[in-house]
Amino acid sequence: MAEDSRASLLARCRAIVGASHVITDQADMAPFMADWRGRYSGRGLAVVLPLDTAQVAAIVTACAAARVPIVPQGGRTGLVMGSVPDLSGDAIVLSLRRLNRIRAIDPANRTMTVEAGCILADIQAAAAYAGMLYPLSLAAEGSCTIGGNLSTNAGGTAVLRYGNTRELCLGLEVVNAQGEVWDGLRGLRKDNTGYALRDLFIGAEGTLGVITAAVLKLYPAPRAALTALVALDSPRHALELLGLLQARCGAALTGFELMSAFCLDLVAAQFPDLPRPFAARHPQYALVELSSNESDQHAHGLLESSVGQALEAGVARDAVVATSQQQALGLWRLREHIPLAQAAAGKNIKHDISLPVSTIPDFIARADAALDQAFPGCQPVTFGHLGDGNLHYNVAPPIGVEHDAFLAHQASVNRIVHDLVDAFGGSISAEHGIGVLKREELARYKSPVELGMMRAIKGALDPLSIMNPGKIL
Amino acid sequence: MAEDSRASLLARCRAIVGASHVITDQADMAPFMADWRGRYSGRGLAVVLPLDTAQVAAIVTACAAARVPIVPQGGRTGLVMGSVPDLSGDAIVLSLRRLNRIRAIDPANRTMTVEAGCILADIQAAAAYAGMLYPLSLAAEGSCTIGGNLSTNAGGTAVLRYGNTRELCLGLEVVNAQGEVWDGLRGLRKDNTGYALRDLFIGAEGTLGVITAAVLKLYPAPRAALTALVALDSPRHALELLGLLQARCGAALTGFELMSAFCLDLVAAQFPDLPRPFAARHPQYALVELSSNESDQHAHGLLESSVGQALEAGVARDAVVATSQQQALGLWRLREHIPLAQAAAGKNIKHDISLPVSTIPDFIARADAALDQAFPGCQPVTFGHLGDGNLHYNVAPPIGVEHDAFLAHQASVNRIVHDLVDAFGGSISAEHGIGVLKREELARYKSPVELGMMRAIKGALDPLSIMNPGKIL
Repeated sequence: MAEDSRASLLARCRAIVGASHVITDQADMAPFMADWRGRYSGRGLAVVLPLDTAQVAAIVTACAAARVPIVPQGGRTGLVMGSVPDLSGDAIVLSLRRLNRIRAIDPANRTMTVEAGCILADIQAAAAYAGMLYPLSLAAEGSCTIGGNLSTNAGGTAVLRYGNTRELCLGLEVVNAQGEVWDGLRGLRKDNTGYALRDLFIGAEGTLGVITAAVLKLYPAPRAALTALVALDSPRHALELLGLLQARCGAALTGFELMSAFCLDLVAAQFPDLPRPFAARHPQYALVELSSNESDQHAHGLLESSVGQALEAGVARDAVVATSQQQALGLWRLREHIPLAQAAAGKNIKHDISLPVSTIPDFIARADAALDQAFPGCQPVTFGHLGDGNLHYNVAPPIGVEHDAFLAHQASVNRIVHDLVDAFGGSISAEHGIGVLKREELARYKSPVELGMMRAIKGALDPLSIMNPGKIL
Repeated sequence: MAEDSRASLLARCRAIVGASHVITDQADMAPFMADWRGRYSGRGLAVVLPLDTAQVAAIVTACAAARVPIVPQGGRTGLVMGSVPDLSGDAIVLSLRRLNRIRAIDPANRTMTVEAGCILADIQAAAAYAGMLYPLSLAAEGSCTIGGNLSTNAGGTAVLRYGNTRELCLGLEVVNAQGEVWDGLRGLRKDNTGYALRDLFIGAEGTLGVITAAVLKLYPAPRAALTALVALDSPRHALELLGLLQARCGAALTGFELMSAFCLDLVAAQFPDLPRPFAARHPQYALVELSSNESDQHAHGLLESSVGQALEAGVARDAVVATSQQQALGLWRLREHIPLAQAAAGKNIKHDISLPVSTIPDFIARADAALDQAFPGCQPVTFGHLGDGNLHYNVAPPIGVEHDAFLAHQASVNRIVHDLVDAFGGSISAEHGIGVLKREELARYKSPVELGMMRAIKGALDPLSIMNPGKIL
């Protein structure tokens, strides 16, 4: 790009958002360029921070006229490097963080209209203040933005009951690649008037347009939520427990997380102050959450009788039902500390995979065996959202092997795991998306027919290819 | 189209599916050409009935090569004339009815893989036989096919709890407009690997490709389902009752239908043998369904205490809780007989609209008043799925006015109702789709930006414009 047209675009951006909201100093731009896990740092022409949808539209229009790529950015907490620019230095990073207004709450419609830059935790809090629940919940909720959640169709721990971010959104406002504003902010439960544009922009990782606002679904806040930790013989027993709880509890089952013994060993070693609910070590654990709109007593009765049945039937080995909010938090803390314990213990090779729930016991057995054959003694760190078929199947080095030496085998480990995922009809990215990190894996595992249709859509909606280029496709 | 190329295409079709599955005789084709409500009959080059996905792909490939349009057809129960051809006689009607196998049921994954031509009632029955629930339920379930349900994103009476057809589908197999087979038959609850092609084909009414199979979500079958009829003062009281029940019952509330006094008057006049649950006439009625995975006793306790609270709080005037399966069926029959009673009483002007649930009382008041001003004495037949904001807001003529004379005002009545729907942020087609019938209304109410993006997608996926031309766009 010629120096003078670059200067003219930046002048236009300053005119649109104000000079103080166009950052071009390298040091000031640095925090917007870096992958937060420190794997990578890109380069950009500028960081632009618009205040509202009209400004976003004007910026996109200016960039389209100048053929300058745009990298939309939210809380920059993604795991696949989808919201940072490449090394060319050609792109504008469009930070949505100033679009952070909650525009409306409609309790009788059970909806909330929010701007893309709203922090997820603030949305949860606003819903709670109105006596409602916005169920999306994930580790980064204190800093991720809803625009990013929507653009990556974020998952989290409540998918079993409430679905992914896509299912929690009724309408969108989007600035498309031509800089036009699409007002699709509909708060409707039923609307069959043409193609599912909403669902297309959700999960598109900013490659088709910029989400600027959304109508979110709210739910009545449950009156009670109870937690239990259940000790199990095997993943197959976990699957049986899941089936038993779903049949007995229906939608009251709001969480079902699997953790292997090795995961809790890691947590115990790194965080000795956390609770140790069982005296004995068990092969597998399920963290179960039950919610009730009726009463604490109802949830208690249902959880105790269900867990009791699982124990009697030999599905479960042992169980602890939390009798206080604090005990419940302690049990959840075990689950939440697995990633931290992994990080503290040293790097491992991560996978965010999903499978048909019914195949998970077989998958784990086959993957464990294949990895052990290729890398004897390597240590799978198997945990995840079993109820959704979503495993974080990570692989730590054999005892005595340096972490960095093991990480040199990342490509071979990925190949073993992802080939098996593919053979089982699974997904190589359950909830993190594709970004840059999994682009080559996507090209490997998606059929040419599907890739062809995705490219046709990208070409149709972003013919100049300025929206987050190099991501997904 | 030249006679010889037409003959050559038909010969190719016969070679693909067998001569007996290519119908060209006008009389034999007639049932495939007619709108079932008798409003219209189209013309076609032939009706082709493939047996499997490979045959569908070969037919589409042949039609694409010959530039011959294709009208995919399921059970032909749609309400917007989306599955019948135009009058040109140029199109092949592609009936999917022979693709009617249930390919697999996976209870532990809570999924079922079915072909497009499976009848909805057969799918419900197969799910029930496996001890599960496939929740989609609508009036045409005995003859509509799942391919049509998916292509129109059908709604029905269980949306409040389980969502529309889109939310009840995890994966698709599609023959695209190039005749390629896309195998997207994934049975995954989480999968963030690129654009939402599944959601794009769902609800596209066959204009982007032909759905040949799907992976459907199953649910544990509830142990109990109870029904109550609640008498109310006004739509606003119905909204209050809905809020009260949702807060107390959560996902156990599986149905909430609104019916005005005039609806039940119609039913009583036409079907005097149906039950009359209340001695007095009340302005509005809510038909409420509660389900429980726990027990009949649990559902009973919850329903009685909730309805009791509504009566005490003055939200409800009176209530009947069905104490037997037969009583429950009787109450549902009142709701199901409203369309039949309307038909027997003479034609009226129909609308399938949705609104933010919170605006429904205001909408009804404003629409009733506007219509009464324009057509004094006209009689709104107001009923529908209040829990989803979906009203079937139909308008019968004033007493003494001929039905046909009133129907001459259809365009003016539509304009009053749809302008108001638009002003309230609603949809002119909640669950029936667009087809041919609402194409002009769509062009009127959708923004140019949204129509532009829809056309761009249509052009990208069906560049020859052979897939169900003239529908939606």
